[in-house]
Amino acid sequence: MARPPRSPLAPARFPDLPVIAGARFATAAAGVRYRDRTDVMLALLDPGSVVAGAFTRSATRSANVLDCQAKIGADGAEGAAFLVNSGNSNAFTGKAGEGSVQALCAALADRTGLPAARVFTASTGVIGERLPHDRIIARIDALVADLSDTRLAAAAEAIMTTDTFPKGAGAEIEIGGQAVRIAGIAKGSGMIAPDMATMLVYIFTDAQIARPDLQAMVQELNDRSFNNITVDSDTSTSDTLLVAATGRSGVDVSGHVGFRDALFGVMLDLAHQVVRDGEGATKFVTVSVTGAASEGDARTHALSIANSPLVKTAIAGEDPNWGRIVMAVGKSGAAADRDRLSIRFGDVLVAENGWVSPGYREEWGAAHMKQPEIDIHVDLGLGDGQATVWTCDLTHGYISINADYRS
Amino acid sequence: MARPPRSPLAPARFPDLPVIAGARFATAAAGVRYRDRTDVMLALLDPGSVVAGAFTRSATRSANVLDCQAKIGADGAEGAAFLVNSGNSNAFTGKAGEGSVQALCAALADRTGLPAARVFTASTGVIGERLPHDRIIARIDALVADLSDTRLAAAAEAIMTTDTFPKGAGAEIEIGGQAVRIAGIAKGSGMIAPDMATMLVYIFTDAQIARPDLQAMVQELNDRSFNNITVDSDTSTSDTLLVAATGRSGVDVSGHVGFRDALFGVMLDLAHQVVRDGEGATKFVTVSVTGAASEGDARTHALSIANSPLVKTAIAGEDPNWGRIVMAVGKSGAAADRDRLSIRFGDVLVAENGWVSPGYREEWGAAHMKQPEIDIHVDLGLGDGQATVWTCDLTHGYISINADYRS
Repeated sequence: MARPPRSPLAPARFPDLPVIAGARFATAAAGVRYRDRTDVMLALLDPGSVVAGAFTRSATRSANVLDCQAKIGADGAEGAAFLVNSGNSNAFTGKAGEGSVQALCAALADRTGLPAARVFTASTGVIGERLPHDRIIARIDALVADLSDTRLAAAAEAIMTTDTFPKGAGAEIEIGGQAVRIAGIAKGSGMIAPDMATMLVYIFTDAQIARPDLQAMVQELNDRSFNNITVDSDTSTSDTLLVAATGRSGVDVSGHVGFRDALFGVMLDLAHQVVRDGEGATKFVTVSVTGAASEGDARTHALSIANSPLVKTAIAGEDPNWGRIVMAVGKSGAAADRDRLSIRFGDVLVAENGWVSPGYREEWGAAHMKQPEIDIHVDLGLGDGQATVWTCDLTHGYISINADYRS
Repeated sequence: MARPPRSPLAPARFPDLPVIAGARFATAAAGVRYRDRTDVMLALLDPGSVVAGAFTRSATRSANVLDCQAKIGADGAEGAAFLVNSGNSNAFTGKAGEGSVQALCAALADRTGLPAARVFTASTGVIGERLPHDRIIARIDALVADLSDTRLAAAAEAIMTTDTFPKGAGAEIEIGGQAVRIAGIAKGSGMIAPDMATMLVYIFTDAQIARPDLQAMVQELNDRSFNNITVDSDTSTSDTLLVAATGRSGVDVSGHVGFRDALFGVMLDLAHQVVRDGEGATKFVTVSVTGAASEGDARTHALSIANSPLVKTAIAGEDPNWGRIVMAVGKSGAAADRDRLSIRFGDVLVAENGWVSPGYREEWGAAHMKQPEIDIHVDLGLGDGQATVWTCDLTHGYISINADYRS
């Protein structure tokens, strides 16, 4: 399949990821939809691993997501497996979709000895077409035979759809003189087209932690990373984040701030990579809001700015159009006072006290807009609420990818 | 000023509007920003007229809107005036903006004998620049001298900014053998860029009606017309709808369904014309939702579909991509059950029971998408809630207009 050109915002190269003891990976070319590339990945976690996760809140979520949600809250010491295919999302496929998930879980359980309740599946790709799960099941023997703790980078390739680069991030920290490792992969490009660009994230660590503690940590960090990125305000039917802790480092990280920070760093890195691969993106945009009446209000304002087509097209045009920021704050529905509002592009104070700043010169704003990384900062002057979200610009490239490719 | 080409969705011509006794109009070229065109319109309503209105809910609304909102609830038998300029929105101009509004109202009151409290202003155009109100005041004598009841079409031209065609609609009905007339104009293109495309609507009738009754009617009908259109989900700092009833027909229309229907017809016609002039639009799209758990849920689903960049780009590409409709319903936050959902493109049943309809053939959906007018119908199968909204597609033209024109 011809791949689109690599995003201009992509990192220079895929990172070296640490090996996670107790986690092994394999990939296969099952021909679900694509030819001449891998399209299935299997992750197998050793007994003693715990799994936490977060999922799309869409009311039309896929059969895979519903199945994962039913399983995620259970403790289980038998280990676990993640089985993911690209090319077909198995979303909006009615009862047939549920049958596909059950067939995949049963086949993998049969081959590995795991209970089916410990198999977590995900599918990403075209919506509304029956998943040819037999093609995946036919590759399970080969997948299990190929499992290796060094194949995580290959797994990042196998789950890509419209992504222009594979996404990975890792961390290694010391706790009491012992090493704890984290390694994760993600896919997503567009937040998030149900056709081809669902966001999937898998993170592995050898830390030792109780499942409820990991679940609470994942939910909290997810709200400050993956839930604060937006490419086009559209939400997938299949978004899935799974974090597995094998415990094999022997280091108990419950309540350890250093581990929490390292995990957050990996999640934020992967979240930013999804934005950097946003469909048609030419600018990576950080929108930070401070001084809001509450944290919720700050997030509402930040997302209103980040999702505004007029703000995003202005950025695409390298136009320091602060009037559109004012508009987006005004329409958000959260508290704002025109005369207390201030706006900065990077270090440049653009507007304050309900008007353009007296010292502002448009060439300063224009210079900031020419950078590949744009910082928009809005202070509401009302309270202590703050939030940061990340997005990209809205370009002709986005229209071409989404309007021109199928018809 | 070079005008963009007329929208392909524009009506064939500006309609013949009925003359409204008691309402006179004038236009002038004040050079607020544009050269070689009119940019100010004055409407003068005779004593006995009542005025009702609706305004943007933006927290950063313009000084003009705040002034109109303070005045709209008052009864006043002295008549009224609407003074509107294009080229400068007087929005986010701090205390200076309030001063401009006061200066304009005082000057017009002085020249017409009206109290300043009966002068309603609006400004539309570039945001954040001080309004050169002296240029408008310098034209007030000429405006008042030129007032005529036949100049409403000229007024529709004077308030245009990025509009590609002037917008007008009228109606004439008989009540008890007597004629009642309605005539309105609107501007707007993009819903709604604060730079150049704020929506303004002025409607005049010779009907006789108490101000509170007219206000209630306008609010109700506004929620089913102008509040149900969207071009890009962005909301203006300046949106204004004013309806004036001069009473000069001598026909009391309070509680008269025929008048209400005629007024609704004029409002809906103008609302649709704003969508037909949406920035870059090539398709006029009606999204109707039925079977929702409530009317509010139906509107939430309809707006989620109409505002989705992925739905709008699919329509631009004439792609019958019903998976994106499923996605937009799923993300809206309102109640939905995947397995009860059905989707139609025009008369074509596309999806039902949580999957593609067994009889659906993609060429049928593709044929509907090739029309200039697209009908998307979603039934939730949950209750009696229904709503209809109108939008346009998202094209390269939108990106060009909003990303390329200023930088």
